[in-house]
Amino acid sequence: MIKTVEWTEEGVRMIDQRLLPTEEKYLLLRSCDEVAEAIKLMVVRGAPAIGVSAAMGIALSTKQAAVSSVADLEEDFDYFCDMMSRTRPTAVNLFWAIERMRDAFRRAKADGATQVDEVKRQLVEEAKEIFRADIESNRALGRFGGELIPDGATVLTHCNAGALATAGDYGTALGVIRGARDAGKRVAVIADETRPFLQGARLTAWELQKDEIPVTVITDNMAGHVMKQGTVDVVVVGADRIAANGDAANKIGTYMVAVLAREHQIPFYVAAPVSTVDLKIPSGEGIPIEERDAREVTHIREQRLSPEGVAVHNPAFDVTPNEFIAAIITDRGVARAPYTESLRRMVEG
Amino acid sequence: MIKTVEWTEEGVRMIDQRLLPTEEKYLLLRSCDEVAEAIKLMVVRGAPAIGVSAAMGIALSTKQAAVSSVADLEEDFDYFCDMMSRTRPTAVNLFWAIERMRDAFRRAKADGATQVDEVKRQLVEEAKEIFRADIESNRALGRFGGELIPDGATVLTHCNAGALATAGDYGTALGVIRGARDAGKRVAVIADETRPFLQGARLTAWELQKDEIPVTVITDNMAGHVMKQGTVDVVVVGADRIAANGDAANKIGTYMVAVLAREHQIPFYVAAPVSTVDLKIPSGEGIPIEERDAREVTHIREQRLSPEGVAVHNPAFDVTPNEFIAAIITDRGVARAPYTESLRRMVEG
Repeated sequence: MIKTVEWTEEGVRMIDQRLLPTEEKYLLLRSCDEVAEAIKLMVVRGAPAIGVSAAMGIALSTKQAAVSSVADLEEDFDYFCDMMSRTRPTAVNLFWAIERMRDAFRRAKADGATQVDEVKRQLVEEAKEIFRADIESNRALGRFGGELIPDGATVLTHCNAGALATAGDYGTALGVIRGARDAGKRVAVIADETRPFLQGARLTAWELQKDEIPVTVITDNMAGHVMKQGTVDVVVVGADRIAANGDAANKIGTYMVAVLAREHQIPFYVAAPVSTVDLKIPSGEGIPIEERDAREVTHIREQRLSPEGVAVHNPAFDVTPNEFIAAIITDRGVARAPYTESLRRMVEG
Repeated sequence: MIKTVEWTEEGVRMIDQRLLPTEEKYLLLRSCDEVAEAIKLMVVRGAPAIGVSAAMGIALSTKQAAVSSVADLEEDFDYFCDMMSRTRPTAVNLFWAIERMRDAFRRAKADGATQVDEVKRQLVEEAKEIFRADIESNRALGRFGGELIPDGATVLTHCNAGALATAGDYGTALGVIRGARDAGKRVAVIADETRPFLQGARLTAWELQKDEIPVTVITDNMAGHVMKQGTVDVVVVGADRIAANGDAANKIGTYMVAVLAREHQIPFYVAAPVSTVDLKIPSGEGIPIEERDAREVTHIREQRLSPEGVAVHNPAFDVTPNEFIAAIITDRGVARAPYTESLRRMVEG
């Protein structure tokens, strides 16, 4: 089982996703600052994994705070929450996890906790619970989604919405593929390499190889060609934030895949836990899109690809309008259009 | 002026396109074998540039042949033509140029040339003429195409159909952009980086920077996003072979761009000289698509991107059906649907 992020008493342990697949190295991050930096630099990435890591980072530094009153602890805690909220703007699971930690603090106070140690204990417990729940919810999502995958299907996916994008184990889009496999179906995967960070070539290929699920890597611009050739039966991708109407922000290029899937009449599914649904945002237009460093596009590691001084765009995400989405597979079931109603039902449980 | 390929008395001189933009190095190739190898390895690439290089390579080794009769010369010449025809399968300009050289040989014989030196001279002259005609035809194509570009337009292009894809100077798709600029229009370019060989990031960006035409590089998977944002006014791409019905083979990913352009109601133009039109092939289904080495996808130079042993696809081209193409811009004018008639008129001139 792939362990993406783990709580240890010494700190938050995570696999350095920048080095995969050529190097499998684990980092031990000993403070909220270090976890926040790891999120910014994409040592850890993927909406659910960011949420879990953020909760653990906040719990870790709050636990280390040398204060004697709950009021002083809360001041430190707020500082850590604010620090985390500035790491990356698009994935709503980050803000959802921070909000859960804030709720846990409020609950501890409401329960009459006057001892600093007791509040700390409850915060660590909450972070661990977010971790456990993420693994469980992806198992549930995988079971629901697995039912939508025909036996013998070839599934195209974009980016990495696998174990490495979540707390570990199953993942979201790859959870659907694992769910199909665990239900006894044969399934093969085509992985878009997903420039610029190459999550598909590096991470999806790596984790599916480990699981012995057949995987073929293509460059992103081959997606149309393989669909035209009839090679793709289903598309499944993850999401970083889903608006109330079902518009879904996900890794740059997802929108392109959705347009191509519709052109070829291939069902396009989004797989994400309900913690990725943001009912406060009515449509995709309200989702903030992160612009990342130009160097991700102009270089691969130390290798320069384009001439010095050239202008580049580097939006990390795009938004796929709801009309391109055949269904949104969540941990509480499969939502279909009209999404405004179906997603609300899922979120409100 | 960018000089992609040049005839010299010592050999064929070409810029090594594998090293651009970080290194500007010229190779002097001293035989047909060396030119054939350069075409296979993509030292030189782009349909018209391949045609010009092939003609020069054949002329070069035929000129060096130590034979005393025209019959012996023809045997060597045929061997060089056959060697060239096995370098790359998709770009029809290669076969067109070889056929022109064969015609030149036949013509020399028909003219009663009995001296080996006279036949050699005529073959060298033919290769030089193919070179000159390519530059001229791209100037003409650029004038016709430039008229289709609105003042102030942002043009998205895929791969490199520029000076570096032709004998030099203007190029085809970039010839249209240069034609617009030389007609006094303001024009900006968005260049898809074009994995796996990165012709957009490396070559298109390099040559437009040299020409001071504003260029922004994006990863291929951003094309849909920038179109959805309304940033793109026109798409212009080159072609490696155009079937009689207007279906156009071009660099992998072109089909994806065409689907996205139609979705966003953006005109999609193909720019190519009539030597790229293959009237013998009725539709795109008949165009052979080259599958290249997996290493182009799994590595960038020495840097491994995906795990060892992973399966990859690497089709070098795809086919865009004629219904996606607003017009085909040739050196003899602008062809519009129905292409079966308009292309035949252009070719028959």
